[in-house]
Parts: sequence; structure tokens; C-alpha cells
Amino acid sequence: MSDRLTIHYRLRCDDGQSPAAKAGEIALEQTVELPEECLSPEILGRVVGRVEEVDEEGNAWIARISYSPEAIGGELPQLLNLIFGNVSMKSGIRVEAIDWPESVLELLPGPRHGVEGLRRMCGVENERPLLCAAVKPLGLSARELADLCRRLALAGVDIVKDDHSLADQSWAPFEERLALCQEAVTAANRETGGSTLYFPNLTGGLGELRPRLSQIRRAGCRGAMMSPMILGLDVVRTLADTSELAILGHPALAGSYFAADHGIAPELLLGEIFRLIGCDGVIYPNVGGRFVLDRHDCLAINDRLRRPLAGCLPAFPVPGGGIDGRRIGDWVDRYGPDTIFLFGTSLYREPDLTAAAKALASKLR
Amino acid sequence: MSDRLTIHYRLRCDDGQSPAAKAGEIALEQTVELPEECLSPEILGRVVGRVEEVDEEGNAWIARISYSPEAIGGELPQLLNLIFGNVSMKSGIRVEAIDWPESVLELLPGPRHGVEGLRRMCGVENERPLLCAAVKPLGLSARELADLCRRLALAGVDIVKDDHSLADQSWAPFEERLALCQEAVTAANRETGGSTLYFPNLTGGLGELRPRLSQIRRAGCRGAMMSPMILGLDVVRTLADTSELAILGHPALAGSYFAADHGIAPELLLGEIFRLIGCDGVIYPNVGGRFVLDRHDCLAINDRLRRPLAGCLPAFPVPGGGIDGRRIGDWVDRYGPDTIFLFGTSLYREPDLTAAAKALASKLR
Repeated sequence: MSDRLTIHYRLRCDDGQSPAAKAGEIALEQTVELPEECLSPEILGRVVGRVEEVDEEGNAWIARISYSPEAIGGELPQLLNLIFGNVSMKSGIRVEAIDWPESVLELLPGPRHGVEGLRRMCGVENERPLLCAAVKPLGLSARELADLCRRLALAGVDIVKDDHSLADQSWAPFEERLALCQEAVTAANRETGGSTLYFPNLTGGLGELRPRLSQIRRAGCRGAMMSPMILGLDVVRTLADTSELAILGHPALAGSYFAADHGIAPELLLGEIFRLIGCDGVIYPNVGGRFVLDRHDCLAINDRLRRPLAGCLPAFPVPGGGIDGRRIGDWVDRYGPDTIFLFGTSLYREPDLTAAAKALASKLR
Repeated sequence: MSDRLTIHYRLRCDDGQSPAAKAGEIALEQTVELPEECLSPEILGRVVGRVEEVDEEGNAWIARISYSPEAIGGELPQLLNLIFGNVSMKSGIRVEAIDWPESVLELLPGPRHGVEGLRRMCGVENERPLLCAAVKPLGLSARELADLCRRLALAGVDIVKDDHSLADQSWAPFEERLALCQEAVTAANRETGGSTLYFPNLTGGLGELRPRLSQIRRAGCRGAMMSPMILGLDVVRTLADTSELAILGHPALAGSYFAADHGIAPELLLGEIFRLIGCDGVIYPNVGGRFVLDRHDCLAINDRLRRPLAGCLPAFPVPGGGIDGRRIGDWVDRYGPDTIFLFGTSLYREPDLTAAAKALASKLR
């Protein structure tokens, strides 16, 4: 493991600029924001990114640029800035992968519970995939949402989670929803002997997040869902770091980074960065659903969430959408048992939600 | 002013979907995440976005969809989610403009100081543009950076600000840099009788931000720079709301939203949303510099920062880059006096930084 942070950028150079010149510009832009002729040899050697290699790949180029971890100064916001801050405003640059040095991985210890911990929380002893269902829609009362929680828990769903648009709307205020939904799940578990978990959506103004986190713990929840791109990545990292809760990361607002020749590869952002900031599971829009990720992206996200990465625990991929419940077995074969399958719309389309959820749950056992 | 939040989306429909169908999908996706057939008439009427109009415009369509402010639940993160959360992961959707209802503007009161307040802070009585210069590069010691501050303040620059990559690196730790830079500017002001301000870059892990904000105030600074897309928009809103500091917003990491047929229009994100969360000035990459915004974008950003918007004060546009100091007069004519011109590279290219900054300052007086 090198002691430098190496970023792999995919470059499109259709503006006549040479790939080497474009890589050199990135190395300056992301550190000193000055052209070479304004820099001392010392700053050039110690601070500016070092272009390690530029290779042609198809009709693009891959530039590997390494940075001194000193440039990060021990904090996630400056790491994000180093990765893509100013170059986000240049065209034809996509961050494909990062080789992390140990010193940076120490800043970002990753999930607290990971795949094994979350499976244990759900009382699942064998290596089967978990079933997650979303409670929706926005606009129902807390009591109506709690009734859906009850039915999904009775059906044997492992994790029942709020839809990510459920915040603190007057239709179902956060505190009331939290209490009623957790109570409903607890009562259903008592009835079935099961261990269904309820994960509320944690959102809110910065000042509300900690009080809500405490309410979530006091209500007896073991985890929560958060949207890192909306709340701020370091906000989620901090909340993950200072609570015992399992965290499901939601990809809302992340989609603008996923253009073909600009942004941050989805497997890096959702699969690696979300994992490193502490998500125990990461929701992503599955291929074949309503969103843009393709088969390759989904498999790559799964891989990055699970693969060995220093001392960081593996996290669960949580593909949502695009899955026909009757073919769930094919998806298990494709994605493997360390997956949480998230169902929403396809369950609510069925005439009997409980029966549909029960059928799914039995297929995963 | 309508009491609903109306979002103008530009749609590209080259996948054979009709614009009306695409608009209808957005209205569902951003609220209930369920198809119509799963919804009660009550939820459909009260909660789902309402497609008000879909008009052809060039080779695209503009859909105006209105939402009940109830769906926002009084918080900025859910507002961001409503604007672009899940649809960020669909293709061919760009948020062009928002008609804000009063109830939402009350949540987001905008700049504390605005154009007039910031001009007053700089001791500028006539209606001239302000001059801002960046202190750089990353890698210099706090003492070296402070010496640059001193020279820029002696030259009569109105605001001297940290480069946005200056965080808490060991090369120039935050606290030491803050103290030395502010001292240098204070000493220079004493010598010249001027009122140059020093704005440090406020970054850091969530737990560091408040202590650093206090240090900034104790050091005697009147403002700070922050990068909302990196720190989190509600983090910046909260810090702006709970401090007396003037805030310069930096666009780092915002560029992925600025694709031609996907994302959020730069004038909306930088010109309106950054203003509403409390930025007194917003830095953007000027046309002709190293980045992607064009002339239209820059003028639109200027317009959105300054135009009347309920009780919200106007904020300063802060174009950076792309300006030849010898032609600064043309830029003043183009952008008007309520502009802060930000210089970096072009100053550092000059053989004598102080003389170059002095020449610029005198041209703006």
C-alpha cells in the first residue's frame, strides 16, 4: 500500500488538449490552483499532485495522479475537495477509482456493524439475503404508516424502513411516526417471535439531527436511514461514528455525479465512499428500474461494498427497484447472499401487501 | 405569490417518452414514489406534485410542477430532496428555476449583511465594485501566507481570502494561519488607514466547525469562506444563521450539477439557493477562465444574486478567473458595481504582487 492517495481519472480530451496536459492541470488545480511557473521547486515537489501515468483506454485516457496525504489535513471535507472540488467544474473528467493510503483509511473506519453485524441484528443466522421494504407513501398519517410497518413485520420482512421523503411533515410528524412505527414492529415481533427492525429516515436541519438520533435510540430502533449527499457526507460520518446505530445510506441527490464522462463513478461514490463514512448498507437504484445505473454499475457497487479494504468491514448492497418478486431467486444467484433486497412499488402494487411480502420473505429463507 | 412551490424542469425526451408522461413521473417520484394506481384520491390530490404546464422550448420541454409546501416539513434537506433527490438519478431532467412561496422563503432568510452590509464592512462608501484576492498556494507556511495577506492589504485589496484548499494541513495549521493572517491584515490597515478584511476558509469535520467559527470571531475576522456542497447546505445555513460573520460561498464540488441537460441550473444553485442559505457573496468561475460556465450563466448568476426576492437581501456575485486586470473596466461595465472581482492566478503571475494588486485596486476606485 503506497503512502500516497492515488486518484484514477478518466479523461475525455476532445477539445484538442493532450491527455498529459489535462492530467497536469488537474494535479495543479486540485492542490495549489496556480500554474507551474508561479511555484517554487519545493511546492512543486511536495504539494502538487504527481501525474504517475496516463494510458489510453478506448476513446478516453486514464490518468493516475497521486497526492500527499498531508494535503488532506485529516478531514473528510478537504478529502472530498481534493478528489473532485474544483475539477467538478471542468468538463470531461470522471473519477473512476482511488487507491487509499493507510493514513486516510484511519480517518474513515467504515461501518460499525457491517454485513455480519446487521445480519445478527436481524436474528438471521444462516447466510441468506435480507429483505427490506419501504413504508410509504408520503401523506399517510403516522398511524397508517405504523399499520403498514405492522403488516410488513408480520410478513417476516427483515428491515422495514421509511420512504426517504418522510421527514417531519405535519401529515406524519417525525416523533409520532417513530414511536408508532417502532411500537407496531415490536408488537408484531412479539406475535411472530421474529426480529424485524424498523429504520426511520433521519433527516432534518443540522440542529435537529442529534436530538432525533437520541429519540431514535430511545424508541428502541437499532438503525436509521440517511442521505449523505443531502445531509453532507461528514454529517453522516459524524453521526455514524458517534452512535451505535446501523446506517443505511440513501443515494438521493447523488445522480448528477453519474454522467458517462463526468463526475464520480457510482461504485466509488456509493460503493466505497458511502462505506468508508460508515454506512452498513447502501441503497442504490437497481438496473431495470426507474433510474440510470446499468448492470455493470450495480455489480461494481456490490463489489466495492464487500471487497477487503484494510480494516473496514464489508457493507450490504441494497438494490432497490427493477426486481420482479417472482424471479427473486435469479437475483440472489446474480448478487449473492450478502445482499439486502429492497422492495417498494412492486409490493404496493399487489392486492394483498402482507401476503406479497410473506411470499417474498419465504423465498429468501 | 402562489402558496405552492413551483419547479421548472427542462426535459429531454429522446427515449420516446412523452413530455407529459415524464412530467407526471417526476411529480410522483419526488413525493410518493408510487404509481398513480397505488394511491388514494386524497393522496393524489393533496401530496403528489401537480403538473401545471408542459411547453415545448427548442428541442426540449419545460414542465412546471407545483408542490404543497407541506411536503417540505420546514427543513432544507427535505427541500433539496424534493427539488432533485431521486430525479437526480433519472436522465434528461434539469431544474431551471423555482417559484418560491412565502412559507419557504421564511425558512431561508438569506444573507445577513448582503451587498450593502459587506460594502460597509469594507469601509467603502461609494458604489464601487470590491476587490478580492486569494492567498495561495497550499503548501506555504502560515507565516508566508500572512506575508501575502500583508502585501495584499497594503495594496488596498478589500477582501483577502484563503484559497479554498487551505484547511488544517500541517504546512499551515488553521489556528496559526488564522492568527497570523488576521494580525498581518490588521497591521497593514493600521499603516494605510484602510479596512481590508481577511476571510479564512472555514472547513473541517462537523465537530470542528463551531470551535473554528468561534476562533474566527475571536481573531477579529468579520467573515469566512465556506463550500456548501462539500460541508452540506444546511451546515452552511446553520453556521450563517448562528454567527454574525459575512459568508462567501465557494462552488467546489458543485460542477456536476451543471450539465446541459441534467442537474440544476448554475444560476439557481449558486445564484439563488446559495443566497437563500445565507451567503453574502457567491464565488463562481467566470467565463473565459479554466471552467465550464458561459457568458449567459454568469449574467444569470449575477441577476439571481441581486434581484428582489421577498425580504431577502441581495448578495454579491464574486466572479473569479478569466479577467485580464488591464481590462477590468470592461468587466465593471458588464457586471456592474455590485460585484466583487476575485483575482488569484493573474496576480501571482506578475513579477511584483503588491504593485499588481495596487494597480487593480486603483482601477476600481
